[in-house]
Amino acid sequence: MADSKLQIIPLGGLGEFGMNCLAVRWHDDIIVIDAGLMFPESELLGVDVVVPDISYLIENKEHVRGIILTHGHEDHIGGLPWILSELNVPVYGTEFTLAYVENKLEEHKMLDDSELIEIVPGAKFGLGPFTIEPIRVTHSLVDCVALAIETPVGVIVHTGDFKIDLSPPDGKAFDLHRFAEYGKRGVLALLQDSTNVDRPGYTPSEWSVKPRLDELFSRTKKKLFFSCFSSSIYRIRIAMDLARAHGRKVAVVGRSMVESSEVAQDLGYLDVPPGLLIHPGQIADHAPEQVMVLISGTQGEPMSALSRAAVDNHKHARILPGDTVVLSSRVIPGNEKSIYRVIDHLYRRDAQVIYDDGASGLIHVSGHASQEEQRLMINLLKPKFFIPVHGDYRHLRKHAELAQSVGVVDLALVIENGDVLELDRANASKAGKVTAGRVCIDSGSAADVVEDLVIRDRRHLSEDGIVLPILTINKQTGKVERQPDVFTRGFVADEELIESARQVVAKTLDGSSAEEKADYGVIKEKIRIDLKRYIQKNSSRRPLIMPVILEI
Amino acid sequence: MADSKLQIIPLGGLGEFGMNCLAVRWHDDIIVIDAGLMFPESELLGVDVVVPDISYLIENKEHVRGIILTHGHEDHIGGLPWILSELNVPVYGTEFTLAYVENKLEEHKMLDDSELIEIVPGAKFGLGPFTIEPIRVTHSLVDCVALAIETPVGVIVHTGDFKIDLSPPDGKAFDLHRFAEYGKRGVLALLQDSTNVDRPGYTPSEWSVKPRLDELFSRTKKKLFFSCFSSSIYRIRIAMDLARAHGRKVAVVGRSMVESSEVAQDLGYLDVPPGLLIHPGQIADHAPEQVMVLISGTQGEPMSALSRAAVDNHKHARILPGDTVVLSSRVIPGNEKSIYRVIDHLYRRDAQVIYDDGASGLIHVSGHASQEEQRLMINLLKPKFFIPVHGDYRHLRKHAELAQSVGVVDLALVIENGDVLELDRANASKAGKVTAGRVCIDSGSAADVVEDLVIRDRRHLSEDGIVLPILTINKQTGKVERQPDVFTRGFVADEELIESARQVVAKTLDGSSAEEKADYGVIKEKIRIDLKRYIQKNSSRRPLIMPVILEI
Repeated sequence: MADSKLQIIPLGGLGEFGMNCLAVRWHDDIIVIDAGLMFPESELLGVDVVVPDISYLIENKEHVRGIILTHGHEDHIGGLPWILSELNVPVYGTEFTLAYVENKLEEHKMLDDSELIEIVPGAKFGLGPFTIEPIRVTHSLVDCVALAIETPVGVIVHTGDFKIDLSPPDGKAFDLHRFAEYGKRGVLALLQDSTNVDRPGYTPSEWSVKPRLDELFSRTKKKLFFSCFSSSIYRIRIAMDLARAHGRKVAVVGRSMVESSEVAQDLGYLDVPPGLLIHPGQIADHAPEQVMVLISGTQGEPMSALSRAAVDNHKHARILPGDTVVLSSRVIPGNEKSIYRVIDHLYRRDAQVIYDDGASGLIHVSGHASQEEQRLMINLLKPKFFIPVHGDYRHLRKHAELAQSVGVVDLALVIENGDVLELDRANASKAGKVTAGRVCIDSGSAADVVEDLVIRDRRHLSEDGIVLPILTINKQTGKVERQPDVFTRGFVADEELIESARQVVAKTLDGSSAEEKADYGVIKEKIRIDLKRYIQKNSSRRPLIMPVILEI
Repeated sequence: MADSKLQIIPLGGLGEFGMNCLAVRWHDDIIVIDAGLMFPESELLGVDVVVPDISYLIENKEHVRGIILTHGHEDHIGGLPWILSELNVPVYGTEFTLAYVENKLEEHKMLDDSELIEIVPGAKFGLGPFTIEPIRVTHSLVDCVALAIETPVGVIVHTGDFKIDLSPPDGKAFDLHRFAEYGKRGVLALLQDSTNVDRPGYTPSEWSVKPRLDELFSRTKKKLFFSCFSSSIYRIRIAMDLARAHGRKVAVVGRSMVESSEVAQDLGYLDVPPGLLIHPGQIADHAPEQVMVLISGTQGEPMSALSRAAVDNHKHARILPGDTVVLSSRVIPGNEKSIYRVIDHLYRRDAQVIYDDGASGLIHVSGHASQEEQRLMINLLKPKFFIPVHGDYRHLRKHAELAQSVGVVDLALVIENGDVLELDRANASKAGKVTAGRVCIDSGSAADVVEDLVIRDRRHLSEDGIVLPILTINKQTGKVERQPDVFTRGFVADEELIESARQVVAKTLDGSSAEEKADYGVIKEKIRIDLKRYIQKNSSRRPLIMPVILEI
């Protein structure tokens, strides 16, 4: 390592969306910004989540001073259980962010062994040679910060995820002044969110969805199902306000939605009047026009409450003809098939479905800065060097071009996961690579079941093996045409266990509706979960389970 | 069957996009409109194409009078080889449509045994009790028709795919007058394309992309790679015109693009001046600013010319820093990952990439009618009954609502594949179901290799079995971490063949670049093809081959 160089080393999120993680190093001191996860591509069968490969941090264990979180989204905090189990260092985050982290660590029974330190916007703190100031930014989630990090060679600013919302529903304003002051004093490098670099203009405020949602509430005659990302606290707040205004009680359905709304209430981000909430079991006791069901599952996640309700397989959330379902969210690329399958199922139930089809009005806004906000930040901070973060390679490239074109940046540099960028007061250049990559985790947890943490990556394959259940489904009839096959490899299983495994699969199939069997995402996930439980109970192994469907 | 009822029986394309196929029956006479295919979802490993289940037609073999094609897109003609091999009936289509069909049947060595009958817009022909008039419509492809079918209970009109292009580049206008005349005389039922029911307004003309493309040609300093759907004859025509105007020679790369442009030239839809075309091998002989490469692969298809060029694995189409790649096409839902992977690879080659990112201007237009055109057709034809075709369930529902709201339709009915709709002069209602569904085909043909037709669906599984090569790839290094595993089931293979199969997979991996190995779509397809060749050569079987990637 060079003697007088600061190193910036992205370990995740540069060249991909998700699992954001970035190390900043000065000599023998390393700080880590964010510890996210991503959800696997469809090619990665049998995997629950993907986290960054932190070999570099493990090799430098004694130098890592802490992990600083910018906000509480999964792509920024979701990798913590895995990372902390390898590297138990203090975790810094704002009050709301840490509340999410606590839930997550509690779930994995790791909370007692973790050191969580609350940070407050505007309050500087020191970590080794670094002095760090969290600066309040706005985003789709509450209590988000950017980080201004004073280093021996100058200040670097990491925006985290942000947009410049000039009227955030909680009144906690984007701190334009603080960024302006840093810009005036001089910023060595700006690391900025690239997500929306394709969008011209300015992202609308979180408030801006309210008028259109108000109209939808007005014209809905029966039950109203409202779905949004469970972390969209502003959206939940707006939906609850509208429910109250329109005389509807609110039932919260789906684990993530329940947890998230409870955290938001505890911390004062949701002000729920007494009597507004009802238990999901009480939905049937109220007239349809007096109920709003706040339900999780906007992305068509196979085991989510909304997916199950859509195939009439949820105990409390029953969707009947004439009910309205509002998906106040976007279609995340890669999720189209799952989402549209759920929407088609909802239409088959004769529900009205309002989703982001280009003609439904402003029912969702992005949480990320568009081009003009990106330019505004660059103008405020006037950084010498600009490094785009969070995005596929093409987003990073476009963002670097945008920054360069603003005219105040000396040099915009595109780096990717594993690149080592070295900076001093005058120069910035790539200097080698460290190990980086993705680790696939089969976490063992599923749907509403909380299991203990099982960190298992694909490297353990040779230990526990693979199980491939092969199903032959007749698409039209929804019938299973042959007895399910179960292949194994590297997994010590006697004929008896295999035969029982077959019966488990057959039983899961028997217990599923034709609609579920026609929805491969759902049926594969059901089989994976049931078979996993069975095998773990009846052998000491935890093989990877990857259902394969043959359609005839 | 009721005595005096006309039956409309969709066998594909209603409740899904692709594999359009619809039967119309009067007593013992059946005609079939279109015979399309669809490309498989990612869940269907090891499958090349999907075609409709035509059990109903096979059971009624002696009653089927012919298949009438509306136009030459794969989702309307792609299923012909399979369907004709089960049901050898005459095929009716326009000149250009039949040219595509001839190529397809020739490839499968079926041309000599097929009866192809050319139809001409405006020229009625009889088939059993039906009198059919093809009516010229406009679309992204040339020589497309709607069908007006006189039946004993009234006229039904099937639009095929259409938009109302008031200035088509070939001057062959949408026949508004003919539709108006049918409307005046009375139409019993209209079956109309639902694809763009989500889009308000009016779809722009095929011409409308020219100004923006002209700008792109003007500012491009090095080689220009132009990619569009190979059947987009208008687009190819515009690109060639611009190439000539800007002093560029044209090299056509990719099998489908070569075939399609040759057909278009033969039939006078492309007027190519002598000396404009060069052989791909001559690209390197010309200055970069004097070359346009017309290349296939807008959807990121793993073995397409553009995908291979993007990872620097195409002999002639070499993309160098400063070259421009224009994707004059849309991102078809489901293909995002493949397309964006290709775009990221292109950026890594330091190419300029112009694609449909919302900020590139009008570089592509849809071929399908938007809401105002759909309303216009309904107004022109004033049908008693309206039946939406071509779309997922939600599209059909929305289209039915749109039609009903126009105010001239008595009844809009949503039917799906397999439903039997019965009509007489006064009534229309669902009356039972026939077998319908999807058949998966492993066609044996790949990339530039033309093999003979192998119709094999999943039902033959028990005969030829499955081979699952399992690869363990280190995402970061691109290295294969373990010897490939090869599982088999229902496939009689000795240890020696399995061992050789392993070596085939290992060899394919050795011969692939790190970039290719990081692109699962590409590497899986390469392994599937190589292994398929090897196994077919060394055994009499044709097992399904489904590569599975484990990422570590």
